[in-house]
Amino acid sequence: MNRQERRAWLEGFGEPPVTGSAIETAEQELNLGWRGDRPVRLIREDALGEGYAIRVSPEAVTLRGGESGLLYGAWELLKKQALGESVTDIDCQPRYALRMLNCWDNMDGSVERGYAGRSLWFEGSRFSYDPDRIRFLGRLLASCGVNVLCVNNVNVHEPAQGLIDEWLPEVSAFAALLRPFGVRLMLSVDFSQPLRRDLETADPLDERVRAWWRERADRVWEAVPDLAGFLVKADSENRPGPFAYGRDHAEGANMLAEAVAPHGGVLVWRAFVYNCKQDWRDSGTDRPKSAWETYKPLDGHFADNVILQVKYGPFDFQVREPLSPLLLGMPDTRLALEMQLAQEYTGQQIDLFAMPGLFREMLDAAGPERIMAWAAVSNLGRDENWFGHPFAGLNLYAFGRYGWDAGADPERVTAEWAALTYPRLPQNQREILCGLLNRSRSVYERYTATLGLCWMITPNTHYGPSPDGYEYQAWGTYHRASRDAVGIDRTSRGNGYTLQYPPELTRLYDDLATCPDELLLFFHRLPYDYVMRDGRTLIQRIYDDHFDGCAEAERMAETIASLSLPEKDLAEAVERARLQAQNAREWRDVVNSFFYRFSGAEDAHGRPLYI
Amino acid sequence: MNRQERRAWLEGFGEPPVTGSAIETAEQELNLGWRGDRPVRLIREDALGEGYAIRVSPEAVTLRGGESGLLYGAWELLKKQALGESVTDIDCQPRYALRMLNCWDNMDGSVERGYAGRSLWFEGSRFSYDPDRIRFLGRLLASCGVNVLCVNNVNVHEPAQGLIDEWLPEVSAFAALLRPFGVRLMLSVDFSQPLRRDLETADPLDERVRAWWRERADRVWEAVPDLAGFLVKADSENRPGPFAYGRDHAEGANMLAEAVAPHGGVLVWRAFVYNCKQDWRDSGTDRPKSAWETYKPLDGHFADNVILQVKYGPFDFQVREPLSPLLLGMPDTRLALEMQLAQEYTGQQIDLFAMPGLFREMLDAAGPERIMAWAAVSNLGRDENWFGHPFAGLNLYAFGRYGWDAGADPERVTAEWAALTYPRLPQNQREILCGLLNRSRSVYERYTATLGLCWMITPNTHYGPSPDGYEYQAWGTYHRASRDAVGIDRTSRGNGYTLQYPPELTRLYDDLATCPDELLLFFHRLPYDYVMRDGRTLIQRIYDDHFDGCAEAERMAETIASLSLPEKDLAEAVERARLQAQNAREWRDVVNSFFYRFSGAEDAHGRPLYI
Repeated sequence: MNRQERRAWLEGFGEPPVTGSAIETAEQELNLGWRGDRPVRLIREDALGEGYAIRVSPEAVTLRGGESGLLYGAWELLKKQALGESVTDIDCQPRYALRMLNCWDNMDGSVERGYAGRSLWFEGSRFSYDPDRIRFLGRLLASCGVNVLCVNNVNVHEPAQGLIDEWLPEVSAFAALLRPFGVRLMLSVDFSQPLRRDLETADPLDERVRAWWRERADRVWEAVPDLAGFLVKADSENRPGPFAYGRDHAEGANMLAEAVAPHGGVLVWRAFVYNCKQDWRDSGTDRPKSAWETYKPLDGHFADNVILQVKYGPFDFQVREPLSPLLLGMPDTRLALEMQLAQEYTGQQIDLFAMPGLFREMLDAAGPERIMAWAAVSNLGRDENWFGHPFAGLNLYAFGRYGWDAGADPERVTAEWAALTYPRLPQNQREILCGLLNRSRSVYERYTATLGLCWMITPNTHYGPSPDGYEYQAWGTYHRASRDAVGIDRTSRGNGYTLQYPPELTRLYDDLATCPDELLLFFHRLPYDYVMRDGRTLIQRIYDDHFDGCAEAERMAETIASLSLPEKDLAEAVERARLQAQNAREWRDVVNSFFYRFSGAEDAHGRPLYI
Repeated sequence: MNRQERRAWLEGFGEPPVTGSAIETAEQELNLGWRGDRPVRLIREDALGEGYAIRVSPEAVTLRGGESGLLYGAWELLKKQALGESVTDIDCQPRYALRMLNCWDNMDGSVERGYAGRSLWFEGSRFSYDPDRIRFLGRLLASCGVNVLCVNNVNVHEPAQGLIDEWLPEVSAFAALLRPFGVRLMLSVDFSQPLRRDLETADPLDERVRAWWRERADRVWEAVPDLAGFLVKADSENRPGPFAYGRDHAEGANMLAEAVAPHGGVLVWRAFVYNCKQDWRDSGTDRPKSAWETYKPLDGHFADNVILQVKYGPFDFQVREPLSPLLLGMPDTRLALEMQLAQEYTGQQIDLFAMPGLFREMLDAAGPERIMAWAAVSNLGRDENWFGHPFAGLNLYAFGRYGWDAGADPERVTAEWAALTYPRLPQNQREILCGLLNRSRSVYERYTATLGLCWMITPNTHYGPSPDGYEYQAWGTYHRASRDAVGIDRTSRGNGYTLQYPPELTRLYDDLATCPDELLLFFHRLPYDYVMRDGRTLIQRIYDDHFDGCAEAERMAETIASLSLPEKDLAEAVERARLQAQNAREWRDVVNSFFYRFSGAEDAHGRPLYI
């Protein structure tokens, strides 16, 4: 799509407003979009903050809110209108004050694990963007209810260290573009930056280091006074961190927290620490246990403005993981729950994988009140449709939605997105589309990771099957399949991982009678002839799930082709569905043959398996 | 090593001569190096060509030869002197007129499958070299007896298409640098170049295409009158070729041969054609059979100046392969036998892998008289020692040596190289070094590819173990291991591959009683409890070879550390030996565990295997 075509496409949504404040943005959005029979009156009421109150009278709709509260309220009205719902009195506050997108954008323009094109704001080792497109991004985020954008990769590659130094004027200009949309920036920083730039150490207890970071924070907040904070990945996958100086992660995080505190900044510290150089022979070490071992002893030690950001599962954004026990075991620490909209392991925005159900399950499992911030790795990129797959926007929409309502119904969220995105799609077709989306996670799971068999994915690229690809590697991700059995015994009788959970969960996962099927081989090592609750053998269940998941992916491709979507979206969705079906066939045959070669068990229905 | 240090290092060998002809070079080399009690008299006798005749009289040593024959004769004298052997009357002609190094150098300076640093002559998308170093390269090649250098990768990446076009002045200058060392250039060309540059087709039967190539060849030979010829990789691994136009490979090759014939050029055509997009489920297709199927019907169809260059085995430079049947089945075609000095699958110039034995075995198997040219992928690079591993120079030396004497004794060749390279190493230590080198191939084979189990190597990088890495891929490289058996039945009772061999070899390989152990699983599918000729089970032999090969690699590392080598060589050899031992342990444990998980068989000696 060239610039002219894009302009025409954007026109459908109106030009993005150029305004100075969120209130002005709210006014302009309503001017552009509100078609109600009554005018909307905006009344600023700072005490409401990001929240808003809607009151309907015969003469007018009155919207009260803090500055960005008015903006969110305006979007709520526009959304109701688009969904054809009547506007009623509402009092609304966001569930989480921080609804943070982590963008893994590098300054060279690449996006780590990005599947929607190159960075929207970096290219050629500098900021490089179309201001109108960034304003449109602001609208997109505001309409979804997202309020923090961390602009650079947690793996801080040079020259991104300069974002808190020589690039501050550009960061400031970028922040100003998004500020009218209620979006504040966050920056990923490199723990070792003092060492790399000025000092001979980055020891968090060294007074020179503390002074360096304080002085740095002063300069950063001078340039961007409403910066949300810093995000840090330390001592993880070869990133530098406090371990190099014999300090623990509370000491590391608190030092940075102290520097940003005077400015009201938060320090987000990722709890993604494990031994990524494990000897695969060593069955005594188990990666899922590692975060707990590092952080549990530090509960209560973190400063008030530290947020420990924990991935939902103990591994790394796999299709199916139990909730990370850390999220249940740190009552005296402020926690963020981290999701991944970027479909690294979940189909790379080629295969369909709708996340509302995952979000709800993880929030329910954590207990929405135990966490105080909501974060996700972004799935955005420079592609015309922002997301690579035209349906992948659902996941950003849902991420924002759960940041406001942790108890939202997943199918309702999906239906909203579909109605807002494809308003002209006939109702029966929209239901078909929603049906596909609602089942998409289960479909993908069955052909890639049934029974909790994760990590059978191609190393590095993380797309396509490779059952043994990670088996003899250093990443701590093993299934240990043999001719007799598969899986790892993580129960209290095994390596004790389940003991990291509260006792009722320990019991639930320990007991084969109660352990959920979808996590069976995550928690247990079982022989292929183990009889499941439904009477099937384990090996037959593996075969069935792969055959069924693949067959459904193939049917999905046909169904998508029959939808009356806008031409461009249809073409892209159809092409991706074709690739998904191909991917599913490969997963089906490779994983089934892999286990056939081990088990020697024929499929009960005589379907093909290959030696 | 900086430039000054390198100078000092080079001084030990004398400055490379700057001369205008091979005769002058011969004179200068003798002036520099000859310490005999009698003068050497050079007499040019063009009829001797590259050959030479040495006659010893009380007054003088008389050396007769064609221009480069005098140069080779001079090196023979210098070699005898260095080895402490007395000079006697010799009449010598090279066994093969073309002794060709194929350099996979890209113009960006990278070397495909290069393990000795970047390109010696390309960098930054242009020629870029130190003329003295290229002269030294000329000396190196002349002293080894190599006479053709193909300067660019057979995968012709832009801008290397320009080598037969806008880069011709630079090619000419580069040729002039090497000409005084008896080295002629060759160029890899892209079969589709007319299409890419000027025409709308590259169809070899289209008169415009034929004219294009004739005109191109005229220009090329005008710039480099002694160019040896063109080298082509066509219809292979996604390279363009005559298949795109429904033409066969004789039609493709002959068209190019016709263009280069008026200039005395040869057209070297690589017979490396197979389906690299095979469905792994398809056991009816077998990659080793493919070259025969493509080329056998074309025997006798190639023009006189076409040389069909055939890799030694039917796969791709694996540690152990049977001779390619094509080398025995094309009596009416001029054949080159292609080796690979670059240790792509054989340890990447980290692990020791001496090739003299391989060269001799392959020449013996082919019958030296059946082939008429001798080719190898180069192992050279910009590293100070040229080869990455200080001992890897042996393989270039041996390659040249077998180009002159196809029946040379491998241990003798190794001993010569060791004495010439490390003249100050005490005799007993030199014997230890030669012992290591002589066993190195067997050591590497036992821990990486015992019983013909090739392709258990990490995909793409081709270093380290990954037993299933290629198993579900499109490359046609499968072992099809299951809980019961491993290997592919390629006998006449199986997929019929052995029928491509002469009847006595078909019988040899078909029969388990006569099939060599080292190719057992290349030709047969066997259960793990199959009893080998020595009484061991197949699985125990797999275990033993891995344990033994690894143990020997570990001992090698200790032995190397004890040698009185020059400091720099010792440090490099010791570091590489340490990495080799580590690599060997990984291969041992991964492959053994892989088969343990399938077979369930314990090691007879109770050594560790891992689930």
